[in-house]
Amino acid sequence: MSKKYRVGILGATGTVGQRFCQLLENHPQFEITALAASDRSVGKPFVEACSWKLATPMPEKVKNIIVTPIAPPLDCDLVFSSLPSNVARETEEAFARAGYPVISNSSSFRMDEDVPLLIPEINHDHLDLLEVQKKKRGFDKGFIVTNPNCAIMSFAPPLAALNDKFGVESVFVTTFQAVSGAGYPGVPTLDIMDNVLPYIAGEEPKVETEAQKILGKFNGEQIEKADFLVSAQCFRVPVIDGHTASVRVKLKNTSTLEEVREAISNYPNLNLLSSPSPFMAITDEPDRPQPRLDRDRGKGMTITIGRLFPDNIFDYRFVGLSHNTVRGAAGAAVLNAELLIEKGLI
Amino acid sequence: MSKKYRVGILGATGTVGQRFCQLLENHPQFEITALAASDRSVGKPFVEACSWKLATPMPEKVKNIIVTPIAPPLDCDLVFSSLPSNVARETEEAFARAGYPVISNSSSFRMDEDVPLLIPEINHDHLDLLEVQKKKRGFDKGFIVTNPNCAIMSFAPPLAALNDKFGVESVFVTTFQAVSGAGYPGVPTLDIMDNVLPYIAGEEPKVETEAQKILGKFNGEQIEKADFLVSAQCFRVPVIDGHTASVRVKLKNTSTLEEVREAISNYPNLNLLSSPSPFMAITDEPDRPQPRLDRDRGKGMTITIGRLFPDNIFDYRFVGLSHNTVRGAAGAAVLNAELLIEKGLI
Amino acid sequence: MSKKYRVGILGATGTVGQRFCQLLENHPQFEITALAASDRSVGKPFVEACSWKLATPMPEKVKNIIVTPIAPPLDCDLVFSSLPSNVARETEEAFARAGYPVISNSSSFRMDEDVPLLIPEINHDHLDLLEVQKKKRGFDKGFIVTNPNCAIMSFAPPLAALNDKFGVESVFVTTFQAVSGAGYPGVPTLDIMDNVLPYIAGEEPKVETEAQKILGKFNGEQIEKADFLVSAQCFRVPVIDGHTASVRVKLKNTSTLEEVREAISNYPNLNLLSSPSPFMAITDEPDRPQPRLDRDRGKGMTITIGRLFPDNIFDYRFVGLSHNTVRGAAGAAVLNAELLIEKGLI
Amino acid sequence: MSKKYRVGILGATGTVGQRFCQLLENHPQFEITALAASDRSVGKPFVEACSWKLATPMPEKVKNIIVTPIAPPLDCDLVFSSLPSNVARETEEAFARAGYPVISNSSSFRMDEDVPLLIPEINHDHLDLLEVQKKKRGFDKGFIVTNPNCAIMSFAPPLAALNDKFGVESVFVTTFQAVSGAGYPGVPTLDIMDNVLPYIAGEEPKVETEAQKILGKFNGEQIEKADFLVSAQCFRVPVIDGHTASVRVKLKNTSTLEEVREAISNYPNLNLLSSPSPFMAITDEPDRPQPRLDRDRGKGMTITIGRLFPDNIFDYRFVGLSHNTVRGAAGAAVLNAELLIEKGLI
Repeated sequence: MSKKYRVGILGATGTVGQRFCQLLENHPQFEITALAASDRSVGKPFVEACSWKLATPMPEKVKNIIVTPIAPPLDCDLVFSSLPSNVARETEEAFARAGYPVISNSSSFRMDEDVPLLIPEINHDHLDLLEVQKKKRGFDKGFIVTNPNCAIMSFAPPLAALNDKFGVESVFVTTFQAVSGAGYPGVPTLDIMDNVLPYIAGEEPKVETEAQKILGKFNGEQIEKADFLVSAQCFRVPVIDGHTASVRVKLKNTSTLEEVREAISNYPNLNLLSSPSPFMAITDEPDRPQPRLDRDRGKGMTITIGRLFPDNIFDYRFVGLSHNTVRGAAGAAVLNAELLIEKGLI
Repeated sequence: MSKKYRVGILGATGTVGQRFCQLLENHPQFEITALAASDRSVGKPFVEACSWKLATPMPEKVKNIIVTPIAPPLDCDLVFSSLPSNVARETEEAFARAGYPVISNSSSFRMDEDVPLLIPEINHDHLDLLEVQKKKRGFDKGFIVTNPNCAIMSFAPPLAALNDKFGVESVFVTTFQAVSGAGYPGVPTLDIMDNVLPYIAGEEPKVETEAQKILGKFNGEQIEKADFLVSAQCFRVPVIDGHTASVRVKLKNTSTLEEVREAISNYPNLNLLSSPSPFMAITDEPDRPQPRLDRDRGKGMTITIGRLFPDNIFDYRFVGLSHNTVRGAAGAAVLNAELLIEKGLI
Repeated sequence: MSKKYRVGILGATGTVGQRFCQLLENHPQFEITALAASDRSVGKPFVEACSWKLATPMPEKVKNIIVTPIAPPLDCDLVFSSLPSNVARETEEAFARAGYPVISNSSSFRMDEDVPLLIPEINHDHLDLLEVQKKKRGFDKGFIVTNPNCAIMSFAPPLAALNDKFGVESVFVTTFQAVSGAGYPGVPTLDIMDNVLPYIAGEEPKVETEAQKILGKFNGEQIEKADFLVSAQCFRVPVIDGHTASVRVKLKNTSTLEEVREAISNYPNLNLLSSPSPFMAITDEPDRPQPRLDRDRGKGMTITIGRLFPDNIFDYRFVGLSHNTVRGAAGAAVLNAELLIEKGLI
Repeated sequence: MSKKYRVGILGATGTVGQRFCQLLENHPQFEITALAASDRSVGKPFVEACSWKLATPMPEKVKNIIVTPIAPPLDCDLVFSSLPSNVARETEEAFARAGYPVISNSSSFRMDEDVPLLIPEINHDHLDLLEVQKKKRGFDKGFIVTNPNCAIMSFAPPLAALNDKFGVESVFVTTFQAVSGAGYPGVPTLDIMDNVLPYIAGEEPKVETEAQKILGKFNGEQIEKADFLVSAQCFRVPVIDGHTASVRVKLKNTSTLEEVREAISNYPNLNLLSSPSPFMAITDEPDRPQPRLDRDRGKGMTITIGRLFPDNIFDYRFVGLSHNTVRGAAGAAVLNAELLIEKGLI
């Protein structure tokens, strides 16, 4: 690939913004040319504006980029957005209207009827919704695609595999969410050390509604949502990265454990640059998955599934795990962008 | 109360054994006169044999008690046992046969048909089973009573309240269990720091079967177990003390949220020396209960319940919390002993 | 004691403010009558304004006190202040000028020549400086007394004992400071989990200069500072409460280890209501003191000293520990107030 | 390099043994052909014998190696040893006597007069001691070389730079050591969560004596130790990997801060396969080094130095950090082996 797309990052100094910088450091398709952040950062070189919190060093190429305001025009071909919800809606729409493809990690547009909520391996055909979106909103070249809430990524992929083969009827999920999901400064130490928090503001409704859209079918005009029910209880735990989900599933059609394992293992993968191999890994050790040992599987892009057993009330239970700031945020957006390139949409 | 019962502790140097020493330090009914532990401790004063791990200092009165072997006879009127499962069965039976009331925190006898599995507030009438036990096993004055697994205590009490009023049909529980539940040395730091473990050996089956016995009815000959189903996924989290449970309940009869709250709040309490007030506390703050802030409620004996809401698959969801080494272990056994005194059984 | 002094707390909603509420809950000499906090809390009952972070419940008596602005007049006889440094200087002076005794935990006035920096057991005679202060500042009934930085409390008391007997020449101290020292929200979890921070803004200079004033002599006009040197490196560690100090001391006069131990053990204590017994405890276990096991010694007011050995460069080394939000903050201020009562100064 | 040396690992299932497997996975000079461990592992494939605790997966090539007893002969050209001290002395000598070069991470032989204690960048000429060793012990082809205690690596390299240029007279060091230094299971969670331990058995004497040998001069017959004094206080902190050292240094000759920085920055590096670049990195951010952010610098082989300032008692103070299981253990041994190859000694 000769040409590189020039990328702008909205909310560049935040934890997800930093992940974008890290993941795109040597990416063959993208090159960061613009970093936009809040007022107090504007005008400074990124190295001064950003309190870098990742264990790998800040990429040399971004250090001297001067941070710009979060508004179009921006010197780039497309933007990745990790803006806080309260500003994302207006700003992302402005960028799309100004002609930029907006690949958003924010929650603002996820449930809008005309906005694709993408997990490329599961619903890449939802991109057809972009035609509807452009027409409805009067966008010209710009558009908005989104990736799901980070907690969704720990259980939606195996759910998709089960739904395809056996139909999913109901899902109980209890999450163990890492502190990096709250950004920086995020969770105060005094709140979480030697502790568990049974509440994450706004999280349970997101987890209870996004999966049905992701697993829905595009009928040419809109997404017909999958008809299963999700009940979610969401907890914050003292873990840096990696969201774990405790899941029970009731299926529409009976299936053996072996069939369930196969449905997950054989679920089709894509071949994008950031596609992990495998998409989903089933572990048989009794004490896995664990966030610290499994979150980096597939460079943080593989979903790990363990403790997959028959349940004594529903049909099956399992534990899912994904890296919340890679597969659940920045990595998800990068994968979406790679998909858009492959489909010729940018 | 003039006379004090002379108490022996089996497994005195362990984490639960230490809690017994702490809880009995100024207890008006009990006085520790014997401390039994494994061979390498025998013959030493307790202060030398025991690596004390609690934040309050070792009680003066136990420091110079010479540790004895774990076998009858012991210089005491009754024994509290916190022996590991592999030795508990044989040893506790030997003590009972030798005439000692055995108040056990071990799992060995919990599910035996003739052994009461007690939460005094819920099933004190199960003590009538002791007649059956004595007859069946040929015990003279001795007997065995048990308290449940520590994880059970986080959700069985509200379940009992709901079962009494509305009937419970099915329960999903996902636990967040503290490391002190594994004893000492217990969980290696390398396993749990920045991590969550999705597996505790042998735990899920215990959690799935004990509640039905606890909430069962004694029919004069045996306990008729409650007929609801429990599905449990049990996790270890980086918390020192305090087990949290994420729970969904399906009821047999419909009820309003207000009725559910009242059923829990008005559930009858006892008036034993270690009875907390209240037995169960409902918190309305959205981010409670939390182990670090709520585990010591009622000196560690109160069950805290929060986030009690209608569920969108089952009827209700809530989060329960109890102190695993107090209400879930040593404190539970002390309460059982107080109940035995009140009933005239010791 | 019949009369209770009516107390106001400046900065009531913060972590130290909450400790004041906790420590004064059943105090026989003080009664909280005013709670002052920042604008967004003013006008609300304390129970609504304050996000309570302590493991014991908010005292009933303060729940319904309406939070007032941080400015005189306040409905009380004296004020405890735990204001942030940037507002403390102006505000505390205003209260003193308005006639209130100000017992401050802030750093603003600690090094002012006419302000006592008190550890009652060590330098209660520094209170004579108040005459100088009142004259110099033109205060009428009001005045300001301060307690030292929380890190100082882990090593200044044994230093005072050694200085009295043998003279201290130089001190190297390396601190391990708990996150509660940074207040709330304070240290982000992403900064401190699985980590150590080698920097606490402004801390090393404070630790290097306060001890000499505390151990100084009042000559009738001013404090002549002790003439030893302190070198401090200050670290934040993942501990909730309890500051630990690694210390080496060079003495002016030779002494045996036994003499050093006696100097510390026999250092005179006071008999105030919050005076711990002992003031300093020497532990002989090789692995103590530890913050989690020793911070609550003497209800958090005792200094624990361990690993007291000859050093192979300086004369002695030891590890000191104190509870940073009790002995190092709110408890220190309460002790100061009790001292003021005993001296007839309030 | 065409030929690969065939490597055996003694103590293969431990935490350092696992690091050896990880570091040698794709090493161009070494190939693991033998894995030796304790009796209960012998005869099993490594994948079954070893409870793998690293975040990267177990290398495929070692999975099916059958674990052998820890005794010669072993199917390899040289052995890396990470045996516990109590068995290391006898076993490592037996391997050396049987003709194997033994590259040991154990403490047993470190201070033996005829055994090199190597940090290749600092004292590679100490390898000349091997002639003395072979003669004295009657070894034929075998020999023993060692690497220092993990805590030493955090401060000995900058000390070497200062000693070369200005002469070191005295050093105070206080360590903040990660739990991985204690192996597995190692430090119980109940001991270290929300806590700091002021004691690591046997550690302070090692830290106080090893540096003088490392920085000593080989005079043709023996190492003349450097003559400075080290005072060490060693603490365990809740950190997974990465030892931090708080250091003050008194120099023999005066120097400016700039000269000190240059002495460290310009200290000569080697060009071995595992040599990091740079050997030592000086950070200027006020809050660095931090274990979580800096331990992986140079793939865990770079020493990071920060907070380098004049001290107000000694000459300079700084904070040093190194990865204790890479640069401080397995990586150190691999570097030693690469040095031996370059010197033609294996």
